[in-house]
Amino acid sequence: MASILPASNRTMRPDKNPYERERSVYVRNPHLDAMDEGILYHLDLGTKTHNLPAMFGDFVCVGGSSNRMKAFALFMHKELGLEGDGDDIEDICAGTDRYCMFKTGPVLSLSHGMGIPSISIMLHELIKLLHHARCCDVTIIRIGTSGGIGIAPGSVVITDTAVDSFFKPRFEQVILDNVVTRSTELDKELATDLFNCSREIPNFLTLIGHTMCTYDFYEGRLDGALCCFSREKKLDYLKRAYKAGVRNIEMESTVFAAMCGLCGLRAAVVCVTLLDRLESDQINLSHDVLVEYQQRPQLLISNFIKKQLGLCDQMS
Amino acid sequence: MASILPASNRTMRPDKNPYERERSVYVRNPHLDAMDEGILYHLDLGTKTHNLPAMFGDFVCVGGSSNRMKAFALFMHKELGLEGDGDDIEDICAGTDRYCMFKTGPVLSLSHGMGIPSISIMLHELIKLLHHARCCDVTIIRIGTSGGIGIAPGSVVITDTAVDSFFKPRFEQVILDNVVTRSTELDKELATDLFNCSREIPNFLTLIGHTMCTYDFYEGRLDGALCCFSREKKLDYLKRAYKAGVRNIEMESTVFAAMCGLCGLRAAVVCVTLLDRLESDQINLSHDVLVEYQQRPQLLISNFIKKQLGLCDQMS
Repeated sequence: MASILPASNRTMRPDKNPYERERSVYVRNPHLDAMDEGILYHLDLGTKTHNLPAMFGDFVCVGGSSNRMKAFALFMHKELGLEGDGDDIEDICAGTDRYCMFKTGPVLSLSHGMGIPSISIMLHELIKLLHHARCCDVTIIRIGTSGGIGIAPGSVVITDTAVDSFFKPRFEQVILDNVVTRSTELDKELATDLFNCSREIPNFLTLIGHTMCTYDFYEGRLDGALCCFSREKKLDYLKRAYKAGVRNIEMESTVFAAMCGLCGLRAAVVCVTLLDRLESDQINLSHDVLVEYQQRPQLLISNFIKKQLGLCDQMS
Repeated sequence: MASILPASNRTMRPDKNPYERERSVYVRNPHLDAMDEGILYHLDLGTKTHNLPAMFGDFVCVGGSSNRMKAFALFMHKELGLEGDGDDIEDICAGTDRYCMFKTGPVLSLSHGMGIPSISIMLHELIKLLHHARCCDVTIIRIGTSGGIGIAPGSVVITDTAVDSFFKPRFEQVILDNVVTRSTELDKELATDLFNCSREIPNFLTLIGHTMCTYDFYEGRLDGALCCFSREKKLDYLKRAYKAGVRNIEMESTVFAAMCGLCGLRAAVVCVTLLDRLESDQINLSHDVLVEYQQRPQLLISNFIKKQLGLCDQMS
């Protein structure tokens, strides 16, 4: 795999790294081999137009907002001690406005927009891309924002299991006119390692819990254009979610867990909470606080990646 | 309603305009009145920070891609004969990268990203915005791209009814842990008027048909990262869709129809088809052809809006 990290850094990885075992990214589609060209339409990339094996690496970080993923790429550039100030970092998907993608050392940062369909398109194309690039042992982490349940705003939740609106660990995928249920288990070992890593960051609370993934943002809130239930009914629902182990709510984790699990990607979801939904539905943080909260998952993931690369002593 | 069209143009509307009857945009949420401030989080707008009644108008056009919606705003600027070259057109939602929004005369152009959850967030905030802005008689049109079934690529489909993957005219909305079924009927009169308008544009085929709205792009295709069905099974499904009246497939129409219907917005969906899914799953048009196809719904909507404003004789 290509990497722009100096070779000397790569040899600094710890000898016994649990993530060193070979694990290929595989597609599960017998039709792909028969296709003359692999076109990744929404990423504006293709097997005939780009040298994919030379482009991609070990860690993939994804998040909803393109601005946030660019900020993360710049942050990783600095944290990995790469040359230059990163100002010239280029959007690999500049030919489309659907997603953006940046590469800093062995870290690929991609945006995925909002909601299950949007991240699903990106994942299909990313997985084909990693397959064409013959990547192995890929770790993929979604870093996002979420609503918390019963925890202080600003807390970071590492997802152990993604659940649907009925608190079930499943993703129902419609395929033609069939409904297929897929598992939403995430990599427990990766979640534990991330949690251990968080103990070295005292600035904010990090915890492991279930993450509920919904198909919309407003229909379970009191502040949408449509609402036909009472505050009490909402609170009752959220309290039942809390009892079922749910600590935060976002809009992508079930399909992310399902697809990564099926295709051999070691996957984690790490989201900061912007509010406690037991207290309020409206996000009314100041701009500065919002920015600082959004940096928390980035800080955790940066520390984790540096540890994996054996860069921690050197960098801290 | 505010408009930057000169008053003289506004008086040129035909005397008997079927769209002149007053129809308010209403929210269906009793909790909103009790809120101190209306925050439209993903649009970066609010009732305390912006003078919403002064900002918004009669026609709203929405589409997935922010670049495309900016191009549409510039096109409308020219077509409406507004002053200047439009180069200084500003993104009203510049404070966020989730969506973008432009206003040219009485036409608001917004992007909505890809998929039902993404457009749902935008619609909740747009409907609250139009409510706060006290807009009446709003016509909202989604202009998008789609896959065709049994029709030539480049054809434009005006949706009469949006259907789900089972060819049913319904949208299933999860609210807390209940599933509510909403109607996906669109405004038949508006669809007919758009179709009549299309007869004056001989360059491409326009037709009225059902539009199927799916939750993903790849799971029904042969070219995704995951696929477990045969080409024959896919073709059988698409042929059944055709027999049920479906002429194109996209990813937003059911929730768009459902929400606009509930909130009193006169709504239409007008999408160009980029391929015939009975022939292929991969979009392999040249860049120039793709650009020209994407302009087709824009041209139709521009003609329709000019007709509504009584500008056709003057502009053509």
